[in-house]
Amino acid sequence: MRLSRYFLPVLKENPAEAQIVSHRFMLRAGMIKQQAAGIYSWLPLGLKVLRRVERIVHEEQGRAGHIPLLMPTLQTADLWRESGRYDDYGEEMLRITDRQKRELLYGPTNEEMITDIFRSSVSSYKDLPLTLYHIQWKFRDEMRPRFGVMRGREFLMKDGYNFDLDRDAALHAYNRHMVSYLRTYERMGLTAIPMRAASGPIGGDNTHEFLVLASTGESEVFYDSAVTDLKLGDRQVDYDDREEVAAICREFTSLYARTDETHDATAFEQVPEERRRVARGIEVGQIFYFGTKYSEAMGATVATADGRKVPVEMGSHGIGVSRLLGAIIEASHDDKGIIWPEGVTPFHAAIVNLKQGDSEADAACEAIYKGLQARGLDPLYDDRDARAGEKFATTDLIGLPWRITVGPRGLKTGVVELTSRRTGESEEMSPDAAIDRVAQIYAAHP
Amino acid sequence: MRLSRYFLPVLKENPAEAQIVSHRFMLRAGMIKQQAAGIYSWLPLGLKVLRRVERIVHEEQGRAGHIPLLMPTLQTADLWRESGRYDDYGEEMLRITDRQKRELLYGPTNEEMITDIFRSSVSSYKDLPLTLYHIQWKFRDEMRPRFGVMRGREFLMKDGYNFDLDRDAALHAYNRHMVSYLRTYERMGLTAIPMRAASGPIGGDNTHEFLVLASTGESEVFYDSAVTDLKLGDRQVDYDDREEVAAICREFTSLYARTDETHDATAFEQVPEERRRVARGIEVGQIFYFGTKYSEAMGATVATADGRKVPVEMGSHGIGVSRLLGAIIEASHDDKGIIWPEGVTPFHAAIVNLKQGDSEADAACEAIYKGLQARGLDPLYDDRDARAGEKFATTDLIGLPWRITVGPRGLKTGVVELTSRRTGESEEMSPDAAIDRVAQIYAAHP
Repeated sequence: MRLSRYFLPVLKENPAEAQIVSHRFMLRAGMIKQQAAGIYSWLPLGLKVLRRVERIVHEEQGRAGHIPLLMPTLQTADLWRESGRYDDYGEEMLRITDRQKRELLYGPTNEEMITDIFRSSVSSYKDLPLTLYHIQWKFRDEMRPRFGVMRGREFLMKDGYNFDLDRDAALHAYNRHMVSYLRTYERMGLTAIPMRAASGPIGGDNTHEFLVLASTGESEVFYDSAVTDLKLGDRQVDYDDREEVAAICREFTSLYARTDETHDATAFEQVPEERRRVARGIEVGQIFYFGTKYSEAMGATVATADGRKVPVEMGSHGIGVSRLLGAIIEASHDDKGIIWPEGVTPFHAAIVNLKQGDSEADAACEAIYKGLQARGLDPLYDDRDARAGEKFATTDLIGLPWRITVGPRGLKTGVVELTSRRTGESEEMSPDAAIDRVAQIYAAHP
Repeated sequence: MRLSRYFLPVLKENPAEAQIVSHRFMLRAGMIKQQAAGIYSWLPLGLKVLRRVERIVHEEQGRAGHIPLLMPTLQTADLWRESGRYDDYGEEMLRITDRQKRELLYGPTNEEMITDIFRSSVSSYKDLPLTLYHIQWKFRDEMRPRFGVMRGREFLMKDGYNFDLDRDAALHAYNRHMVSYLRTYERMGLTAIPMRAASGPIGGDNTHEFLVLASTGESEVFYDSAVTDLKLGDRQVDYDDREEVAAICREFTSLYARTDETHDATAFEQVPEERRRVARGIEVGQIFYFGTKYSEAMGATVATADGRKVPVEMGSHGIGVSRLLGAIIEASHDDKGIIWPEGVTPFHAAIVNLKQGDSEADAACEAIYKGLQARGLDPLYDDRDARAGEKFATTDLIGLPWRITVGPRGLKTGVVELTSRRTGESEEMSPDAAIDRVAQIYAAHP
């Protein structure tokens, strides 16, 4: 994309309403615009990151064998009356009456609807196991929406639901979600720690939250520092292998890691003192096993091999997709702006032309721009007629991890400069070498 | 995808509620499930087609230089009061009150919001031209939702908005949209005819609708039959070239083609009698040039080069994304089911194993499955333990354009069968040749 033709309304001033860094930088970088309390437009740059986050979620769900569908944003009140949650849910549920006086609601989650889909078409153990998920806009009418997309009202969530014949199979689905989530967060450059959690209105005993450490996190967390060294890395996981998947879950959940809701001071004391940590965390996902809570209430049964009819075993599993953008920025920024991890950056590299209008500099930039595109990459070419300082400030603010700086002086000796946003380190090389290097970097982030 | 692990709840019976063929086949093929009047879940197969349609829309918008963002589904009533449309819009607008008693609405379209985004960050002619679009769920509270996704209440629409300095530039944007839409529909296998239309509540004089001919269409259309022979084909279009783009528009709009709203019997009489056609059509898109209607009401002005402040010239341009699935099926089916055009098919080919459990047949299917995937294709392997007739019926119903049939008898002489869903013609060839052939077919439908 050529910046002169893009829509990137960056702000020079810090917006007064933003209390935390991610909110501030998302507004300043022209990623979002508030349309009402807790309701945002995703401007082009913000949407690009959102789509990259979504894509990673889709790919990892696909790898785990989970199947995407898409449920609507609006649901009927009657469906929620079947589970008893219509009255329980309280004021966070946005209730709507249509022109025919039918009661609708803007879905805050989809346990009821997915159970309805299941019961209307599956009746045999032969169709199990089954895990369905969607990535869809949800609405929760927060009393005090704040912190930008971190606590919005209209937000994008991935929610998945497993249907299994028995408890063991359902626990395997739970574990499969845990492992797929670990890989999902790692690909986004995040360390998200699974922590035993409280179940809240979803129900069920087995539940883990995934928390990203950040000083602005809403939860207090207690953990063994060794837990942050765990990495899934590029291990190949056979998601059908119950024992292999369970072993990974044990590896990631054996060390002490709890939120304030489930914190156990006595158990925490067992952690060697030098590894005991108390910090704050941002919740970016949660998985639940709740058995037959919804299937019993809503009559979602399957026939077993020996002809009995049993309520299907279920769990639900969520990732806060839009909130993740805030979490990533909280975890990765400096005073100049955002520092996108390569896995989610909106553009792979910035090309900064130090002297727009200089025929050699223009030609070199053009060649690098097309060269990166030819390698399947998506560069942002700052072709504005602006001072170098302004161009650098924009690139730094919007957080592109790599910058190629092109100017007449360097070109005299055939070099451009490749700069890492994270380290600030620069290296001179030929334009072709810079293209190669950037392509090589992203080969690890497909 | 292996069918044994997929979620494809096909129906054997015709659902009583479906009055038109696309609705019937979408229900029977397990593409959608109704959740409330005019509100649908998109089951996995339906979602795959929806995403392919969306991708084509995105690609063609990108080619035309239009920039994606994403506005929220909910909007404030105050924004619509600025344009005067809050009171005008009537009962089709779903009005909502949140817990703080603030008035919201579920957006039926986005002229007001995009004008708000524009005015809050653009103030100079230097930032023009600019065209922003999104693909987002909308809601119109239809009095009588019917025909499945063809007249739903919650529906997916692409709506784009151009901002230009003067009328000529805005008319170029209008033309650019017309050409990009023509290419969009062609890639979906559709002949969509641009017809002069009435503007309705959006406003403006210049407006064309795009209509797909189908006997179930809601509009009566009158046209010169020569218009259906026009094709954009694979011409390269320079979207910045005003004259080139305008010439294509003239080519596609010079022949008589009108809906009943704008039909002119006298002009129609000028068409040679043997080419006069009266038929029915489905509206799949509409483009509008409305000048300064919203920019004046909402104070969206830009400074000109000579320092004046003028309201920005605008237009809006929509494609009914979810409705397109219905239109494609209406235009492409037979009595056995859907016939997907290659550009939008949910899976590129079906692999039907005539004797599941036969080790040679299983191995051959597996090799073809992996072979197609290795070519970047997405096959559906019917690996169920079911009769051949049932497998054929499913493949025909869900409309995959190509089927590779694998059985022990053919394998004895080293052949499988490649069958076209459209023509019904089959050809025997080696498994490798079948893979090559399918890959070759899709090379033309990236």
